[in-house]
Amino acid sequence: MVVVGFIGLGLMGKPMAKRILSAGYKLVVHSRSSPPVEELANLGAEKASSPKEVAAKAEIIITMLPDSPDVKKVVLGENGIAEGVRPGSIVIDMSTVSPMVEMEIAEELRKKGVEYLDAPVTGSTMGAESGTLTIMVGGSKEAFERALPVLKTMGKNIVHMGGNGMGQMTKMCNQVAVSLNLLGTCEAILLASKAGLDPKKVIEVIGSGAAGSWQLNNLGPRMVERDFRPGFKVEHLVKDLRIVREVTSRLNLPLLGVNMVAELVKALEQHGYGSEGTQALITVLEKLATHQVGSK
Amino acid sequence: MVVVGFIGLGLMGKPMAKRILSAGYKLVVHSRSSPPVEELANLGAEKASSPKEVAAKAEIIITMLPDSPDVKKVVLGENGIAEGVRPGSIVIDMSTVSPMVEMEIAEELRKKGVEYLDAPVTGSTMGAESGTLTIMVGGSKEAFERALPVLKTMGKNIVHMGGNGMGQMTKMCNQVAVSLNLLGTCEAILLASKAGLDPKKVIEVIGSGAAGSWQLNNLGPRMVERDFRPGFKVEHLVKDLRIVREVTSRLNLPLLGVNMVAELVKALEQHGYGSEGTQALITVLEKLATHQVGSK
Repeated sequence: MVVVGFIGLGLMGKPMAKRILSAGYKLVVHSRSSPPVEELANLGAEKASSPKEVAAKAEIIITMLPDSPDVKKVVLGENGIAEGVRPGSIVIDMSTVSPMVEMEIAEELRKKGVEYLDAPVTGSTMGAESGTLTIMVGGSKEAFERALPVLKTMGKNIVHMGGNGMGQMTKMCNQVAVSLNLLGTCEAILLASKAGLDPKKVIEVIGSGAAGSWQLNNLGPRMVERDFRPGFKVEHLVKDLRIVREVTSRLNLPLLGVNMVAELVKALEQHGYGSEGTQALITVLEKLATHQVGSK
Repeated sequence: MVVVGFIGLGLMGKPMAKRILSAGYKLVVHSRSSPPVEELANLGAEKASSPKEVAAKAEIIITMLPDSPDVKKVVLGENGIAEGVRPGSIVIDMSTVSPMVEMEIAEELRKKGVEYLDAPVTGSTMGAESGTLTIMVGGSKEAFERALPVLKTMGKNIVHMGGNGMGQMTKMCNQVAVSLNLLGTCEAILLASKAGLDPKKVIEVIGSGAAGSWQLNNLGPRMVERDFRPGFKVEHLVKDLRIVREVTSRLNLPLLGVNMVAELVKALEQHGYGSEGTQALITVLEKLATHQVGSK
């Protein structure tokens, strides 16, 4: 049986690691904080003291970390994966990070005879728990095929998008659409409210037609109820849109809309909403408009 | 049986009028061009030489016209509805026009003891043909109830949104969300293409999750195929966003996103795409980016 390593047992990583374990794989885990490590150990996972140790014990090593520097450090840093990994193993980064960083890391690991896949996900913690994540994969087709059985324990819609970095590129396309649909949701609801309409009724009426979007139908009602609990946190969208801007700058691609949303979401974080859900974007637009939608 | 009048047998009006006729209502019709009038007459409708004559013969008079000045002229102008309409009748404007104009017209008709409803629709010509339009209605609740059986011949989702103008306000909220989802679709696809991804594959992968929207799933593939045949014409979106800007200016509501899209869609019209579908917006972004998505 393939031994799987998992590094980064955060909000997403922990339920993902649990799914691998309950699918019957032998699992070796490591994380910065110890409670989730203990939780996985109690379920039968083996604890490792460093990414290096995880890599030495596993043939498929998965990382799920906050940002590009974390991934770089865990893979290429001191006591990192690269120090322990055996030729022929596959390292899979499921974090959402810069495609350029993924290409760099892939290059380094290739020198050691190790395959690297970038495989960011969508579907939030609920998808992680139920094993229904969408997984967008960049890297060689061969490594993708070998990793597929393990990825299938975590996701439903698992697609090979191209070479190294292309999983992350796909995730960035996702975040571009998310961002503008979110802004559209805010503006439509703000107009409805200011015009004296019942914003929830408006969402119901327009949500099933050409104006419909996941953002409108799922986050719209929460904006009206002033329910800013996070499904997806503002600080994560800030990070993702920073990556979008790195990518589009690199590609010399002027994208006016998503750049505007990036500025608004940064302003939202500055206003103290970093750990709230992205539906809190409505508050920044309300400040500009001196009009507030709905009430708790 | 209630006699229904219908003025404006264009792309939307003609199939809508046909539905009323085939539901068994006696129908009196008038339109600027004669072929659709003859077509309806052949199906059993009575021809009238002016809006005034339609109004004199019907108790429920429906208008489906291009823009605010057209509606104002047909209702309040020479030989208009107001000259022929009997007290107790209901006039229903199903065009997409300015909420402020609808409030003015309602005020004028009220003086004659005539109720007015603004009842714009969404769902395109396909919805008009199948009688599955969404109809957003502004005006008195009583007039709404009386008009409902006739509206039901044309639509499925028929909702009373508030007083006069509120149907149009709801339609404007719809167009705000449509516009930003459309921009999000363009930018996501442009990024996918420029990054070297297969844009259609990206749409498939991200379209069912948090990035999903009607615009992405329906217009995205057409952008990639360079299929700019109109479902909804650019010139109509230009008009609708002009109304959105009139409304938001009146409400002192700064909506950054939709204003940007309004400028881009106007540029698109200037480039000669007025009678193409709104998915042609991608061409304006491509000009800015000096990169073209897909091919025919």
